[in-house]
Amino acid sequence: MKPQVQIEYCPGCRWLLRAGWTAQELLTTFEQELGAVTLRPSETGGRFTVTVDGVVVWDRKTEGRFPEMKELKQIIRDRIAPEHDLGHSDTPERQ
Amino acid sequence: MKPQVQIEYCPGCRWLLRAGWTAQELLTTFEQELGAVTLRPSETGGRFTVTVDGVVVWDRKTEGRFPEMKELKQIIRDRIAPEHDLGHSDTPERQ
Repeated sequence: MKPQVQIEYCPGCRWLLRAGWTAQELLTTFEQELGAVTLRPSETGGRFTVTVDGVVVWDRKTEGRFPEMKELKQIIRDRIAPEHDLGHSDTPERQ
Repeated sequence: MKPQVQIEYCPGCRWLLRAGWTAQELLTTFEQELGAVTLRPSETGGRFTVTVDGVVVWDRKTEGRFPEMKELKQIIRDRIAPEHDLGHSDTPERQ
């Protein structure tokens, strides 16, 4: 089964648009690799947490900030498709 | 547990944007009622299928067309939150 991403976001903070944009970016970049992306409104305020198959790969509270999109793609790529070249969104050492 | 919606779409048909828009519309309208919306690229071409807790509420192949957004909201409202007034997106007999 292909990996599944979940984005839990705080609806009261109005982060749906950010979460929706993130979902679509991931589904575009990892069109072949991802099984699904789930958008989940959080019950807890201030949450923006991204998981891959249940493993947290980004938590806003822990990191103190939102991820850059290229940063998040690199983290997810390293986990689900290490051979996938992200082009100009990749780290300098991989380019 | 709150109801969960899944939107399965054909990525080869370039329906991600439509699916992503639909997900965000549903999460905005049913902010209190929905537990999550999942975007799932289909393995089968031409698919645009919406399920609520695993029950198909719209299938493009069966219906022969995409749902209107207000139509889809009414269907989902009737299933998960029959008391929820959709305002100007509602059917005439409910207004």
